[in-house]
Amino acid sequence: QDPPAPSVPEAASVCLSCHGPFGRPDNLDYPIIGGQNAAYLASALRAYRGGQRTGEAAEMMASVARPLDDRTIDELAVFFASLRSLR
Amino acid sequence: QDPPAPSVPEAASVCLSCHGPFGRPDNLDYPIIGGQNAAYLASALRAYRGGQRTGEAAEMMASVARPLDDRTIDELAVFFASLRSLR
Repeated sequence: QDPPAPSVPEAASVCLSCHGPFGRPDNLDYPIIGGQNAAYLASALRAYRGGQRTGEAAEMMASVARPLDDRTIDELAVFFASLRSLR
Repeated sequence: QDPPAPSVPEAASVCLSCHGPFGRPDNLDYPIIGGQNAAYLASALRAYRGGQRTGEAAEMMASVARPLDDRTIDELAVFFASLRSLR
């Protein structure tokens, strides 16, 4: 019996718009985040939020991550890690 | 018939030591890189090499990426993208 579908955090809609419905983007310049390790996803979001990642692509992610609080970051990380596309 | 096993770039050994034999690390703080999008992997390595990613975890990756030339970065990106673990 499949595990219950993970509930989609409200904040995930902006991530899904670039990273694709299963966290697997059409644009191959973007990373697959579906199925990625949750702890890494959370640390990457914190690095973007904290300005520790600079450069053109990073600016876009920094603007997305800036308003996120720690609980939302952890919820997003767990949600995307649960998407099987990287397993 | 499975595709031929990808030849392992010499420079990959240092990556494999942290990211695991199939680019799937035991340490969940590290990202799965096996099967990740090659273009993203190359841009991330260039960001580490160029000092565009700072912070504790990034320092380790910057030291690894610093000596890599563009051709080696592209070889590593294609190699790790070819590992199915993220597909």
